[in-house]
Amino acid sequence: MSTIAFIGLGIMGSPMAVHLSKAGHQVTGYNLSPDRTAPLVEAGGSAADSIAKAVIGADIVAVMVPDSPDVQDVLAAEGGVFDNAPAGALIIDFSSIRPDVTANLAQEAESRGFRIIDAPVSGGQAGAENASLSIMVGGYAEDFEAAKPVLDAVGKTVVHVGPNGAGQTVKAANQLIVAGNIQLLAEAIAFLEAYGVDMPAAVEVLGGGLAGSAVLNQKAQKMLDRSFEPGFRIDLHHKDLGIVTSAAREAGVITPVGALLTQLMASARANGDGGLDHSALFRGVERLAGKVN
Amino acid sequence: MSTIAFIGLGIMGSPMAVHLSKAGHQVTGYNLSPDRTAPLVEAGGSAADSIAKAVIGADIVAVMVPDSPDVQDVLAAEGGVFDNAPAGALIIDFSSIRPDVTANLAQEAESRGFRIIDAPVSGGQAGAENASLSIMVGGYAEDFEAAKPVLDAVGKTVVHVGPNGAGQTVKAANQLIVAGNIQLLAEAIAFLEAYGVDMPAAVEVLGGGLAGSAVLNQKAQKMLDRSFEPGFRIDLHHKDLGIVTSAAREAGVITPVGALLTQLMASARANGDGGLDHSALFRGVERLAGKVN
Repeated sequence: MSTIAFIGLGIMGSPMAVHLSKAGHQVTGYNLSPDRTAPLVEAGGSAADSIAKAVIGADIVAVMVPDSPDVQDVLAAEGGVFDNAPAGALIIDFSSIRPDVTANLAQEAESRGFRIIDAPVSGGQAGAENASLSIMVGGYAEDFEAAKPVLDAVGKTVVHVGPNGAGQTVKAANQLIVAGNIQLLAEAIAFLEAYGVDMPAAVEVLGGGLAGSAVLNQKAQKMLDRSFEPGFRIDLHHKDLGIVTSAAREAGVITPVGALLTQLMASARANGDGGLDHSALFRGVERLAGKVN
Repeated sequence: MSTIAFIGLGIMGSPMAVHLSKAGHQVTGYNLSPDRTAPLVEAGGSAADSIAKAVIGADIVAVMVPDSPDVQDVLAAEGGVFDNAPAGALIIDFSSIRPDVTANLAQEAESRGFRIIDAPVSGGQAGAENASLSIMVGGYAEDFEAAKPVLDAVGKTVVHVGPNGAGQTVKAANQLIVAGNIQLLAEAIAFLEAYGVDMPAAVEVLGGGLAGSAVLNQKAQKMLDRSFEPGFRIDLHHKDLGIVTSAAREAGVITPVGALLTQLMASARANGDGGLDHSALFRGVERLAGKVN
């Protein structure tokens, strides 16, 4: 069992920290807004009021924060992990950020005597709560092996995909596919509703064939119900598609549907839907047809 | 057990007719090119050299042909089903065609004393061969019930979605989603290959999260291998996206990703890939990046 500092106890981080505590690890949580530490403390963990205090004695420092600048702050800013964690600690960055930022931070971590892997996740709030996340890991094989027991406590499909940054690259591809599958489902549902088809029956039969997907299973009902509480917010998916856009451009890969999705996600945000679940791309399809404001 | 005429023994129709024969039905097959009747005859069925002969004594007439004009010919042309099938026969049209054509043919069938359902399928060649198709049925509930034993012999998810034409509408939505999921997977794989990620590991972890889909399970390896034998041909999927385009326009539904996919599918065809599996949309992504001719 490990001594784990867990930085970032949001919708995803909180249930993950709870699972680690319940698995027998000694988990100390830190979150910018301290009220979010309650579930972890209830599950037998403890709370710290600074990163410096959270990482005292930690073998493992887990990070789950929204964006590239947040990870940079948590790790490299004054009072952050690099300044305070015990030498040799293994940093597991669960956040979804730019692959190039990850690669640079990994170099800095290594030069300061830490081990580090990028371990972004897919599976959403449900995956975090059920410890059934998909986790795509970049880093040295031996660091992946060392982190495996911790990763297995929060994930179901835990795979090493390459060197530092590769986890983020796969996560970017994941977010491209997910955004597209949501948009396609939204267009299909708007189309079927317009024709007055029996919708539950249609969703069932679509799910049984080549159109079947995790997105269809998890998001169709939200669209039918117009119920878009997050879940995973449009704002965050917009950030992720920005990562895809730059990284694809950098590599000379042309992604026509990815480019259109990036615009549609930005439009959802511009219309005030940034705080809704990404299944609210459905609202964009209705908006295009003059059906919502 | 029924006496079934099966018109159209292609990649999909042939294994379906074989399953019906093996399930104990008396199946007589007809196909434009007569050599395609061999598997059915081997499975205990028989072959006819005209539609008129195939439908003699049939309770059920199954049709599985490529496009709207083909169904019109098979049913309504001189020497076709309407002219020759026994009064009261139940016509099951497994083809994927325009919903408005289906609705018109259903009216004509009814006026000539036949029962008819539209029952387009999803699941591809594998689904036809394993009798695990998704079948989306439009028509009267009592005709659906009457056809159910036959449908269950070739499908796994068999659902009644509305009146005549509704099956085709759901199939159109299905093809929209499938085309999009393929294109997104293609863009994601091109992106990941450009970054040198461990591809089998990446495909595994993508499949375990919210990016997971039947398309990913069935098509990722074909893209990694650049192996695009059909399967389901670009030419046919191009036809299906034409159906989506008209039907969406007719209903005032705006489908921005659907519109782009229709262009990309047409481009694949214009570049000579019409006879390849629809997973060859991957070649279009490589072509955009200057990687194939």
